Amino acid sequence: MCTLFHLLFLRACRMIVNGRHYRSIWLHDDGWRVEIIDQTRLPHTFTTHTLSTVEEAFHAIQAMQVRGAPLIGATAAYGICLAMRQDPSDASLQQALQQLLSSRPTAVNLHWSLQRMQTHLEPLPPDDRLAASYALAAKICDEDAATNEAIGQHGLKLIETIANEIPERRPLNILTHCNAGWLATVDWGTALAPIYKAREAGIDVHVWVDETRPRNQGAALTAWELGQQDIPHHVICDNAGGHLMQNGTVDLCIVGTDRVTARGDVCNKIGTYLKALAAADNDIPFYVALPGSTIDWRIENGFEIPIEYRPGKEVTHLTGLDDAGQRTRIRLTPEGSTAINPAFDITPAKLVTALITERGVCQASPAGLRALYPESASA
Amino acid sequence: MCTLFHLLFLRACRMIVNGRHYRSIWLHDDGWRVEIIDQTRLPHTFTTHTLSTVEEAFHAIQAMQVRGAPLIGATAAYGICLAMRQDPSDASLQQALQQLLSSRPTAVNLHWSLQRMQTHLEPLPPDDRLAASYALAAKICDEDAATNEAIGQHGLKLIETIANEIPERRPLNILTHCNAGWLATVDWGTALAPIYKAREAGIDVHVWVDETRPRNQGAALTAWELGQQDIPHHVICDNAGGHLMQNGTVDLCIVGTDRVTARGDVCNKIGTYLKALAAADNDIPFYVALPGSTIDWRIENGFEIPIEYRPGKEVTHLTGLDDAGQRTRIRLTPEGSTAINPAFDITPAKLVTALITERGVCQASPAGLRALYPESASA
Repeated sequence: MCTLFHLLFLRACRMIVNGRHYRSIWLHDDGWRVEIIDQTRLPHTFTTHTLSTVEEAFHAIQAMQVRGAPLIGATAAYGICLAMRQDPSDASLQQALQQLLSSRPTAVNLHWSLQRMQTHLEPLPPDDRLAASYALAAKICDEDAATNEAIGQHGLKLIETIANEIPERRPLNILTHCNAGWLATVDWGTALAPIYKAREAGIDVHVWVDETRPRNQGAALTAWELGQQDIPHHVICDNAGGHLMQNGTVDLCIVGTDRVTARGDVCNKIGTYLKALAAADNDIPFYVALPGSTIDWRIENGFEIPIEYRPGKEVTHLTGLDDAGQRTRIRLTPEGSTAINPAFDITPAKLVTALITERGVCQASPAGLRALYPESASA
Repeated sequence: MCTLFHLLFLRACRMIVNGRHYRSIWLHDDGWRVEIIDQTRLPHTFTTHTLSTVEEAFHAIQAMQVRGAPLIGATAAYGICLAMRQDPSDASLQQALQQLLSSRPTAVNLHWSLQRMQTHLEPLPPDDRLAASYALAAKICDEDAATNEAIGQHGLKLIETIANEIPERRPLNILTHCNAGWLATVDWGTALAPIYKAREAGIDVHVWVDETRPRNQGAALTAWELGQQDIPHHVICDNAGGHLMQNGTVDLCIVGTDRVTARGDVCNKIGTYLKALAAADNDIPFYVALPGSTIDWRIENGFEIPIEYRPGKEVTHLTGLDDAGQRTRIRLTPEGSTAINPAFDITPAKLVTALITERGVCQASPAGLRALYPESASA
């Protein structure tokens, strides 16, 4: 946790809830159980939740108590730790890897994180695996926080350039979709890290928050996160962004991603593609922020990425607080009308102005990505 | 109301609720009061509501108990009748025209209908105005039903052509946004009329229903309307259409409109523009269905159309049925996060494959529109 000294001078941490620094995943005081924020309860209730078994880690990912590609990866890493604590055998390791891998199909960080755990733990004698797993999971988390802060720093330069081009004195309007903030990562966030850095740099930013149906990660999580950071924002319907872009009230878009292919196609939360089309049609920069672990070097064509279809009830029913402050679920649709619920779409590289990574900014192209990640040539 | 004979043989009426023919606006048995369906209660409750004064007609339009450009026009016409019943003087007529004109800013049918009432009533002696107003309002309604049936007939030909091009045996997938069905008009609908005609013609259609945030006219009204007509459909989030188009599961889009300019720019419910962009990017036909009364010959550039901004609470709060079947309002956003709520956007003519009117199908261009409406040259 950050001290006031950290907050005021070092600014080495970002995620702030009720004025206190958190990460989105951390070890319990007992040193082995894993604490998460139950994101399904936000924005109305801030509750933490303790994971004691790999099954609970699996459930937390699948039920989206944790979500966001980097945080899914971190939670899966700790899921392996919990499995090793129960049984560090080869069979147990294999089973935990398989189970966690099946929790969500689209985000590639899950593969990346589990593969890293596997490569590290498999050669070790079972008795050494427990300590090694916790050490690596902690490293994955620390790296994620540092990676995202670096993304923030690189994104800040882009924001500064655009802010300097605004002739009139008005806030810089940034549109984002879904939640790619600290809640989606271990700390800082991907798409929101540059916004936090811009705010720290004294740039007057205002964020258009796509509500992001059906699960409303924008209205529920991004709005809450920006509120905690005291950053001016308005929630908008996903339908509204095109009009705001036509209207000149969006200066740039920044989104996160669940998987980027080797040629720069971007898989992200359903609806991202529509915003990218509108940004292109209105000559508005459309940036995608990501850590290198989100790049799937095995795939060129984004349309080969498996798209998760989630339950239709996420569309037909919605949960919020009623006028009495009770958490209540309501049905929107008539009886007999069902829904289809694809959770991600593909934004072709041609619609992406640039990718913002921890290593710098590059074109969404094979050459752009290879230049930043030369080691990928052997991937 | 239609008899079984009508339903089976003449098919001269379309709107069916619980197996019985309705129009969306009609005269009470007393011959002067006006009955509407309270569309804010759908899809969960089918309630009719009686209008006795021009103020009540104004309120019904403003509170969106009635909505949809053609139905707003019809309701405003009957609003004038109610005003004439109270007081047929010049002052009363002027005041009613002004008041009703201010009820919603975007739909041009409101102007069109009120101007027609004004032109007809103003020259008449006050004592003749009451009967004349009811006669003209009834004519506007009858014409609207006939106009929309003609739109359906012209749209059917387009659908037939596309259906014939599908090699495999599968339903024709049509995506629509908002509600431009019989609920939005007096009968038949605009965008949905071709779908009803296609179904009657034995074409196997399936409709993707954009839920259409924030007021969910798709999830609440279109889904209900299609359910009443027994037409296969799925509700989708507004975010999902782009993915479905990329995926090859949308064969064509049809939407309605609140105002079309003389060069074919289309103002319609917020989010329409995003779907038109995706349709263009995926070579999918994007049709806009409209009666001639929706064309605003005074405006070329769609961006000159005033866009209504509605209360942010329509975004932050949502009403539906809770698990106990009670109508309940919930809040989605955190305290302190507010919303901006533009209700319409502009789809530039270049993104519109064709306009479907009561006079036939034309290009969304000055030449296309003038060819179908030559009298507009003097407008």
